[in-house]
Amino acid sequence: MTTKDEFLLDFGRAERIGLEEAIYCAGKSAEQIDAILDAAAERGARFLLTRLDTAKVEALSAAHRRRLDHCPVSRTAFFGEPRPVEAKAAVAVVAAGTSDVPVAREALRTLHYQGRGATLIADVGVAGLWRLTQRVEDIRAHPVVIVAAGMDAALPSVVGGLVASPVIAVPTSVGYGVAEGGHTALNSVLASCAPGITVVNIDNGYGAACAALRLLHAAERLVRPAER
Amino acid sequence: MTTKDEFLLDFGRAERIGLEEAIYCAGKSAEQIDAILDAAAERGARFLLTRLDTAKVEALSAAHRRRLDHCPVSRTAFFGEPRPVEAKAAVAVVAAGTSDVPVAREALRTLHYQGRGATLIADVGVAGLWRLTQRVEDIRAHPVVIVAAGMDAALPSVVGGLVASPVIAVPTSVGYGVAEGGHTALNSVLASCAPGITVVNIDNGYGAACAALRLLHAAERLVRPAER
Amino acid sequence: MTTKDEFLLDFGRAERIGLEEAIYCAGKSAEQIDAILDAAAERGARFLLTRLDTAKVEALSAAHRRRLDHCPVSRTAFFGEPRPVEAKAAVAVVAAGTSDVPVAREALRTLHYQGRGATLIADVGVAGLWRLTQRVEDIRAHPVVIVAAGMDAALPSVVGGLVASPVIAVPTSVGYGVAEGGHTALNSVLASCAPGITVVNIDNGYGAACAALRLLHAAERLVRPAER
Amino acid sequence: MTTKDEFLLDFGRAERIGLEEAIYCAGKSAEQIDAILDAAAERGARFLLTRLDTAKVEALSAAHRRRLDHCPVSRTAFFGEPRPVEAKAAVAVVAAGTSDVPVAREALRTLHYQGRGATLIADVGVAGLWRLTQRVEDIRAHPVVIVAAGMDAALPSVVGGLVASPVIAVPTSVGYGVAEGGHTALNSVLASCAPGITVVNIDNGYGAACAALRLLHAAERLVRPAER
Amino acid sequence: MTTKDEFLLDFGRAERIGLEEAIYCAGKSAEQIDAILDAAAERGARFLLTRLDTAKVEALSAAHRRRLDHCPVSRTAFFGEPRPVEAKAAVAVVAAGTSDVPVAREALRTLHYQGRGATLIADVGVAGLWRLTQRVEDIRAHPVVIVAAGMDAALPSVVGGLVASPVIAVPTSVGYGVAEGGHTALNSVLASCAPGITVVNIDNGYGAACAALRLLHAAERLVRPAER
Amino acid sequence: MTTKDEFLLDFGRAERIGLEEAIYCAGKSAEQIDAILDAAAERGARFLLTRLDTAKVEALSAAHRRRLDHCPVSRTAFFGEPRPVEAKAAVAVVAAGTSDVPVAREALRTLHYQGRGATLIADVGVAGLWRLTQRVEDIRAHPVVIVAAGMDAALPSVVGGLVASPVIAVPTSVGYGVAEGGHTALNSVLASCAPGITVVNIDNGYGAACAALRLLHAAERLVRPAER
Amino acid sequence: MTTKDEFLLDFGRAERIGLEEAIYCAGKSAEQIDAILDAAAERGARFLLTRLDTAKVEALSAAHRRRLDHCPVSRTAFFGEPRPVEAKAAVAVVAAGTSDVPVAREALRTLHYQGRGATLIADVGVAGLWRLTQRVEDIRAHPVVIVAAGMDAALPSVVGGLVASPVIAVPTSVGYGVAEGGHTALNSVLASCAPGITVVNIDNGYGAACAALRLLHAAERLVRPAER
Amino acid sequence: MTTKDEFLLDFGRAERIGLEEAIYCAGKSAEQIDAILDAAAERGARFLLTRLDTAKVEALSAAHRRRLDHCPVSRTAFFGEPRPVEAKAAVAVVAAGTSDVPVAREALRTLHYQGRGATLIADVGVAGLWRLTQRVEDIRAHPVVIVAAGMDAALPSVVGGLVASPVIAVPTSVGYGVAEGGHTALNSVLASCAPGITVVNIDNGYGAACAALRLLHAAERLVRPAER
Repeated sequence: MTTKDEFLLDFGRAERIGLEEAIYCAGKSAEQIDAILDAAAERGARFLLTRLDTAKVEALSAAHRRRLDHCPVSRTAFFGEPRPVEAKAAVAVVAAGTSDVPVAREALRTLHYQGRGATLIADVGVAGLWRLTQRVEDIRAHPVVIVAAGMDAALPSVVGGLVASPVIAVPTSVGYGVAEGGHTALNSVLASCAPGITVVNIDNGYGAACAALRLLHAAERLVRPAER
Repeated sequence: MTTKDEFLLDFGRAERIGLEEAIYCAGKSAEQIDAILDAAAERGARFLLTRLDTAKVEALSAAHRRRLDHCPVSRTAFFGEPRPVEAKAAVAVVAAGTSDVPVAREALRTLHYQGRGATLIADVGVAGLWRLTQRVEDIRAHPVVIVAAGMDAALPSVVGGLVASPVIAVPTSVGYGVAEGGHTALNSVLASCAPGITVVNIDNGYGAACAALRLLHAAERLVRPAER
Repeated sequence: MTTKDEFLLDFGRAERIGLEEAIYCAGKSAEQIDAILDAAAERGARFLLTRLDTAKVEALSAAHRRRLDHCPVSRTAFFGEPRPVEAKAAVAVVAAGTSDVPVAREALRTLHYQGRGATLIADVGVAGLWRLTQRVEDIRAHPVVIVAAGMDAALPSVVGGLVASPVIAVPTSVGYGVAEGGHTALNSVLASCAPGITVVNIDNGYGAACAALRLLHAAERLVRPAER
Repeated sequence: MTTKDEFLLDFGRAERIGLEEAIYCAGKSAEQIDAILDAAAERGARFLLTRLDTAKVEALSAAHRRRLDHCPVSRTAFFGEPRPVEAKAAVAVVAAGTSDVPVAREALRTLHYQGRGATLIADVGVAGLWRLTQRVEDIRAHPVVIVAAGMDAALPSVVGGLVASPVIAVPTSVGYGVAEGGHTALNSVLASCAPGITVVNIDNGYGAACAALRLLHAAERLVRPAER
Repeated sequence: MTTKDEFLLDFGRAERIGLEEAIYCAGKSAEQIDAILDAAAERGARFLLTRLDTAKVEALSAAHRRRLDHCPVSRTAFFGEPRPVEAKAAVAVVAAGTSDVPVAREALRTLHYQGRGATLIADVGVAGLWRLTQRVEDIRAHPVVIVAAGMDAALPSVVGGLVASPVIAVPTSVGYGVAEGGHTALNSVLASCAPGITVVNIDNGYGAACAALRLLHAAERLVRPAER
Repeated sequence: MTTKDEFLLDFGRAERIGLEEAIYCAGKSAEQIDAILDAAAERGARFLLTRLDTAKVEALSAAHRRRLDHCPVSRTAFFGEPRPVEAKAAVAVVAAGTSDVPVAREALRTLHYQGRGATLIADVGVAGLWRLTQRVEDIRAHPVVIVAAGMDAALPSVVGGLVASPVIAVPTSVGYGVAEGGHTALNSVLASCAPGITVVNIDNGYGAACAALRLLHAAERLVRPAER
Repeated sequence: MTTKDEFLLDFGRAERIGLEEAIYCAGKSAEQIDAILDAAAERGARFLLTRLDTAKVEALSAAHRRRLDHCPVSRTAFFGEPRPVEAKAAVAVVAAGTSDVPVAREALRTLHYQGRGATLIADVGVAGLWRLTQRVEDIRAHPVVIVAAGMDAALPSVVGGLVASPVIAVPTSVGYGVAEGGHTALNSVLASCAPGITVVNIDNGYGAACAALRLLHAAERLVRPAER
Repeated sequence: MTTKDEFLLDFGRAERIGLEEAIYCAGKSAEQIDAILDAAAERGARFLLTRLDTAKVEALSAAHRRRLDHCPVSRTAFFGEPRPVEAKAAVAVVAAGTSDVPVAREALRTLHYQGRGATLIADVGVAGLWRLTQRVEDIRAHPVVIVAAGMDAALPSVVGGLVASPVIAVPTSVGYGVAEGGHTALNSVLASCAPGITVVNIDNGYGAACAALRLLHAAERLVRPAER
């Protein structure tokens, strides 16, 4: 039922903005995803798929399933040839609690898909400040920092006051009551008293990674202006 | 125009719940406040007035104005005889930033009105964590802690993870954008990852002080059960 | 798939703030909880688990299941050795209606886990004021009062006007229409006309109990300053 | 500049639904109100004006000003001949606090304009329950009860559990923080645990009175069906 | 597991406010409802049960199931002896669309449970005004009118401008997008341009019926003051 | 259980406003829909059914099922004789992404049901502006443009700045976090910087098509005034 | 201080989309507006200015003031040569109440600025349905209908059920309590039960007129396809 | 009245995170600001002041006023010695409309205060796409892009699809109705369909500039790892 006129892939995106198009699967049927992967396969294109849960993977055609490297925790999959990951981690992905790990892993996987190294630093929420303190030098050693936090999302403010690197906060939907859905975490990081923190949508680990990729790309461009 | 049937003072409140009635002035005309103070003076009663700005003080009758000890920063006033303040401070009133000081002072003045000692510890927001670290022993020395914070209100979570005392958070309306009106600060402290923090309404320094007074009263009752 | 770097238990919390770390299970997989309990068992640590429903208990490893004392109504479990509960109840846990009992029981179980005595007083909502009136002396006999109420949450205001003890209100998500999710109950208790009521997040019986524990601890410290 | 085609008075309303049209002045210029009163005067019609503050009264034409009976507290005015008020009060208008009196007076004045007797019972908020208890028999003696309350608006729930009469709640915008604007009071009365309470818009004393008038009219119709 | 201390029935409610207590089943387990019905049966008491869906009925004890008169559309049940219904309908229950019928039926059943006659007038939404026009005389013949409407809830405003009877609006959760959950319908009726309309919570057919019952009771009391 | 007094079909609607009544199925049981189709069949009437998912189709009576032309993607069905569709497409239905196609198809099917030609132009979101640029002449060739877009809904603003035709925006509920439910898309199109864009409810492809039908009808009327 | 690089006028807009650029003055200083008018005068361009209040007009340079045709009610001004207005009114601009007239006049003036005829039909709110009924034929005679309504905004639904023309609803910010700011009116028209109503932003009379202009333009284009 | 214990300057911030502390003046009295500047002057420290309007500047002590370089449009001031600005602009500050210029200038001034070059590119909103198209190469030439936009904030999405640089979006409070306060603009950029856009609080030009400064600093660090 999915006809060719229902999608139009943006194969030029990587050249234009340095980021390949990814397939956001939450709003799409298995049939639509199969059709998109057919088109990708035809061109020999790779793809990152996000918000792809295990049930939907199982509904895909067997041929496509075989070519997917799927991670159920982060609900991401790589279609096509993986790229080697840099040895040195340029990005620290910090998760406030264990429940924030799936969002943090979405960021990590997106970075790996693009060949960037990244380090996960988990369960360093501010209710036990010593856990952050003993990891702060490790965090500082990365030029870019992503912080995933739900509930009151106090962690990005504290990190932002301790490290000089760009801090990209990803509010998560972890929590209940006033925290339900992640809006409190979102507003908290937007209102942060630590200067220069930037924010992406709730649970958007993919977007945080893309922002980090833009930034690493810009840094390289600053260093090598002649190559532009 | 304000007739006697428009108010009915609760002179038995102190005996019933250990807290004297206070006059919330924001929604009342100078004429209404004058009528209430007349009734108080008639009975020889003392009163705490809150949300009383300088313009409204100047609209009160001269006789009442003379008997008021008014603080324009906290917009509080004492009517009638002050009570001596305990030497030892039982309550630490912590303000995240300079802009949170008016709310913190409302709490301090309410405690002083009831004769309780309290210490102001200001400008210890988490964006510069060393400011909190160097004051944390001082805070810990108080059996009750009130924390006033606006914007992302990350401070109560951090304090709650460092001290064992009861922590009463007062979100303040300091901030703009998503922080406007204090709702982000409120939700942030309600969703705190530090266990056992309690919360009062936005900018309610008076309520936080009343909660501290209930608590000190309960502690004394626990110690001296025979005297109940 | 859950690796050791995804969690970092805060075993020093009890010493630091008088409250042991508890495991909030709502956002965690059975696999993650098993890994945490393994780490706890290794150190001989006890744990309180909250928001743990029966389905998730059944997905845990048999060894852990056997060591759990699980209460399906409050969705709490004790892992490890129970502590004897004080004979005298220091905390009254008041529930406005029968539907608020699960939240009230979460508070009761948290207090029991820490060895504190507590009394449940249920179905005393203000629509039939006599039910409250006949229990008010009983409530007053407790130094600390927790009130769980949903819908319009008028009960904490009425209780706060009748008793001198600290009143910790827990708004519940009981209700429909404007009451759905508990936000009306929450705002109602924050805006209470009774002075000195404090509030925790919606359905957060655990947090209310922790606040009561901080308070009882502070009271004891006030009595025995030399023992600090 | 106000031309005749900008308004069209509904002179048949009293006959149709038993309530004369009233002029809501908040959104209208003095010039528009003057034009409407000219049209009314031409037909010899009476009018109730609501939300008419003193500044706007002073901007009206002198001829109209002279014919107005204006009450600055309730911001209501009668234009034209008053109607005698029944000796017996059919409606109790209860105000939780002194700050709720302006809204209560808007209801009282609307009832008086239509010739109905009504009693003001003020400052009986639930924080001091004895104030309500000593007035409850007086309230019960009225066949219809209007309750104006802001902040947490716990009063209508308590009254609704004590009296059999229809209870019309008017939430008021009295309060700050979460209570600002009256939305908490509104939601609280909509979610009331006391059955059969009805509600009107925030600060809508006029609407509550109109509801009472519909009700008194219906009662009379039930008694005298032959006279219909 | 449900112990006797978890509920306390208000058997005196009918005498106090003219309305028997009803059991709101949405937040209760079958086990809790069984325990309540046991207590009712012991006293020979009747009960109205609301928000009771078919699945929960089937989980009740067989003995109780046999004594229930259950209506799956309105999710109401009568427990115990029915009361004869008055021949003459005092209340018109108007439903804007077919989807509003379940809420309208909840009101009808509550009225019938108390022995009051009521007429259902359905599918008269304003998008086809002729449907209302041809029923308006029928509606007018009832001393009390309940109007259930979702989406934009324009119907209560139009009815309120056409009939003199008290109009109790019940916003329903029918709709999607901005109408989802019934908040638009609720706000629309609260902001109605027709004077004297009162409102109850979203989907609260039971509450609207209780308000009508209070009103009919008050009317009878006005007629027969000597009998009080 | 569905009785005839629960619905009242508006068969005169087409004559009155040029649009036949459609059956919104989301809030209705299969039993109610069967009863409505019985009434339609009796009169030989056609019907468009919206929000009718496959599960509900299967619960309808076999006789009705056979007469339905059901599209599961758009959840629409035609009951009765189809009408021939005009050869020339008067309406361009533009979908920002693949996930917006179901809403776009609801609009397309509604137009086809009324015999109007329409063209689907999908996956032209602004993140890859070239996709829109290469289709803009095609869009411009249609006198009316419908644009379905979720998430940030930037597409209608860009289209509105490029084409002179009326642009009817349908915000969709596609997205997560702040985009969840479609409210961000809705507000974005209402606040559009491109002048003269109009908006319908979230996911309301049916409503957008009806607006287009009114417009085409008005255009024809402008051309042939004598025929009115 | 306003430099030339702060604005860039879109002189090609009329050619591109049939609507000239207008200057939204609410967010601009008199100095900025003067600079824009200088640039316009230089090119001999005309301009429509919206949200321009009298105080700001008086702060403009005298030369510009002289060339403005300013209407204080609608806060619009014409700069430059007026265009003759068509004799026949193509658009009916309907205002629910007198307070909605300023928004209705903004729409009227925008239409006049572009040379289109339009008729104001005011004070036909549904609380007195006869006022609408006696004007409905007049409304029907216009191919396009704009309806401005605040509070519950029931009028557009009723009009939409009575006329076949395209109906563009403009919710207004008239009202208080839940109606404050116009959000209830907005949601009400978006959720309208009458099919095919479209909506613009709150108080956006200008936008409604632009939508009408697009529509009239499209109609003309449909009639004269050869001239495209 | 402002005592030394009300503020505690964070002079080590620049060393710690590469950003000097700035004084947010909106919530502070002139007296408080004077006290802070005294402390700064004592140490010979420079300061950036934000949200400082002309009225408050005039209330400062004459000595401080003389040392301020104040810009009324952006409400920023430099206290102390300016730093030379780099010749080459590393940051493009793009403003969607003329009304967004004050926020854009706050970002520009913050960058200049720290010695960074930046280019203002204004009035390139998407309603006239050619304005953006003709500037896009200029924007692309900057390694970092800040985009300030209000209303529907469609511009950052379009820019993010066209340039590879990091894009920091600043939603502004420009607009009315649903756009009032900037929340629609904020949500729109958070939900952007263009990948890797990051966001700061509404009107937070200062924060966007700080994020850009962190980023430029990180880029330099990537280039010169040995110098760390």
